[in-house]
Amino acid sequence: MDTDIILLGHGSGGKLSHQLLEELIIPTLSGVPMAGRNDAAVLEHNGSRFAFTTDSYVVDPVFFPGGNIGGLAVNGTVNDLAMVGATPLVISVGLIIEEGFSRRELAEILTSMREAADRAGVSIAAGDTKVVPRGKADRIFINTSGIGFFNHTLEINGSNARAGDKILINGTIGDHGIAVMAKREGLELDTDILSDCAALNNLIEELLEEGEAIHVLRDPTRGGVATTLKEIALQSDVSITLDEAAFPLKGAVRGVCALLGLDPLYVANEGKVLVLAAPEAAERLLERMKQHPLGRDAAIIGEVTAVGGGRVQIETVVGGMRGVEMLSGEQLPRIC
Amino acid sequence: MDTDIILLGHGSGGKLSHQLLEELIIPTLSGVPMAGRNDAAVLEHNGSRFAFTTDSYVVDPVFFPGGNIGGLAVNGTVNDLAMVGATPLVISVGLIIEEGFSRRELAEILTSMREAADRAGVSIAAGDTKVVPRGKADRIFINTSGIGFFNHTLEINGSNARAGDKILINGTIGDHGIAVMAKREGLELDTDILSDCAALNNLIEELLEEGEAIHVLRDPTRGGVATTLKEIALQSDVSITLDEAAFPLKGAVRGVCALLGLDPLYVANEGKVLVLAAPEAAERLLERMKQHPLGRDAAIIGEVTAVGGGRVQIETVVGGMRGVEMLSGEQLPRIC
Repeated sequence: MDTDIILLGHGSGGKLSHQLLEELIIPTLSGVPMAGRNDAAVLEHNGSRFAFTTDSYVVDPVFFPGGNIGGLAVNGTVNDLAMVGATPLVISVGLIIEEGFSRRELAEILTSMREAADRAGVSIAAGDTKVVPRGKADRIFINTSGIGFFNHTLEINGSNARAGDKILINGTIGDHGIAVMAKREGLELDTDILSDCAALNNLIEELLEEGEAIHVLRDPTRGGVATTLKEIALQSDVSITLDEAAFPLKGAVRGVCALLGLDPLYVANEGKVLVLAAPEAAERLLERMKQHPLGRDAAIIGEVTAVGGGRVQIETVVGGMRGVEMLSGEQLPRIC
Repeated sequence: MDTDIILLGHGSGGKLSHQLLEELIIPTLSGVPMAGRNDAAVLEHNGSRFAFTTDSYVVDPVFFPGGNIGGLAVNGTVNDLAMVGATPLVISVGLIIEEGFSRRELAEILTSMREAADRAGVSIAAGDTKVVPRGKADRIFINTSGIGFFNHTLEINGSNARAGDKILINGTIGDHGIAVMAKREGLELDTDILSDCAALNNLIEELLEEGEAIHVLRDPTRGGVATTLKEIALQSDVSITLDEAAFPLKGAVRGVCALLGLDPLYVANEGKVLVLAAPEAAERLLERMKQHPLGRDAAIIGEVTAVGGGRVQIETVVGGMRGVEMLSGEQLPRIC
């Protein structure tokens, strides 16, 4: 493999992404550890904590079942802020548009952004528009950056997992990735699989009422649940065991995954949160999730079994144990 | 002209950009007026003011005389924060990379970002990397967003120009645009024209010691000095007269402009600031500028002649007066 050029896998959210980040981007951009390993940076100014995050969206196709790139970009940035426990306040929008893009589609995308922002209770405060010649971009790319503030003193981040923690998820896995993939590849499905794209800040706010019992929040986007939990295991230096049978998974998603040889554990979600929390709060958190419109299919899917190791393993439905590693290379490019 | 599609000119920073912004983007993204008309949004949270801005960079070529897309992106966002009088604190970096891009060039770009951030005194706190397949982007696009805070209560924005204000600029115009253009078109020039790409926050901080005498700060990037002053005239509802003979302009830039039929007044700058200030402070500001490494060629180039009108006119070297309008369409695409 030519190591001198950037590969698609470097954008996968998996192993190659992490190598690029750890070997080149973080050391070059900053002498001190960046917050790049969490969803958002938590910073302080004049005694006040705030969170700051950025994401670029290059999803193909731009319109997919259950959403479009606009709502995806707003929800994604809102979620990144919520994942460190911040209350999202404002976001910015940077558009890179390919010459010839339809103005009507642009309007539709912007409308989705506005609606998503309204639902999440954030305002869009800054923007920028660039246009590049035909063939120099693919329709439209959107960057959203965001700022959130804290109304509590909890420290929620990927280094906080503890032995005994239960791992919860608020619903079915893989919906977003498979919805985008099916549309892109023109698959004819019996049932519609819709992206789960949604803003999670309201749900997170309710969960945070459990206070210090909440140790880690992370949205399993690129790289899916498997890569995200492997990251947390490494960041917190703990070992994790998952129960395959406990994972909420739509039959249609399972079917498409089987057909295409994809593992739903590695497929991107855009409206899901993994919660690692003290065991005594787990059932209450599950109940809170299930009461929320975005958590009806919530489940406890595993636990932190030990300090050290950085390992994730999964008890399969047939009774075996297999190790879970980060996605290596690119399973589904341009999923967000 | 087909009004249903996005044209290159919609990214020019000129008339078409403004139409798109005013007719579609601002009304759709926000019910209340966005800060989109200033370089950065000025917001308030818990009684503390902060500034927030975003910009995507799509410059072609990525490496140009005097800099590259990395330093350009950092300086551009630092400058946008400085233009509302904020002290830049942190920036984010969103990379969109075309598959096959050289890792060595990526390292060089990231190093420029780091160096620019160090010079400006900001930290890079958040990042994101996406990779798209070959042919779906043009080498690399970079979004930088930034947050700044205020250590004063001045209100500096484009609506603040007043009759009698003097207009200053900190040096020669058109250097960035012509440097990029010459490199892109492979022009063989006798002398090197270098981009003026630089962080202006340190210079601005010194100028702000003049306090309330400073009314407007604006960096004349896309669309150049002419478009920027026209924007200010409209935002403040004033009329402006410029003195063509007073404009600092390098002979080489003048020459290339003449050769290619470009008007340097419309060519992008990346290390220049237009200052509109009370007349009694103008000479002191000029002196402060000239003492600063980024202001050696500073000059007073015009004044606000009247309230109302939204007109900009220029006294030409040969003694005539001509009206200045926003750039219509695209003079130099992908200049930043």
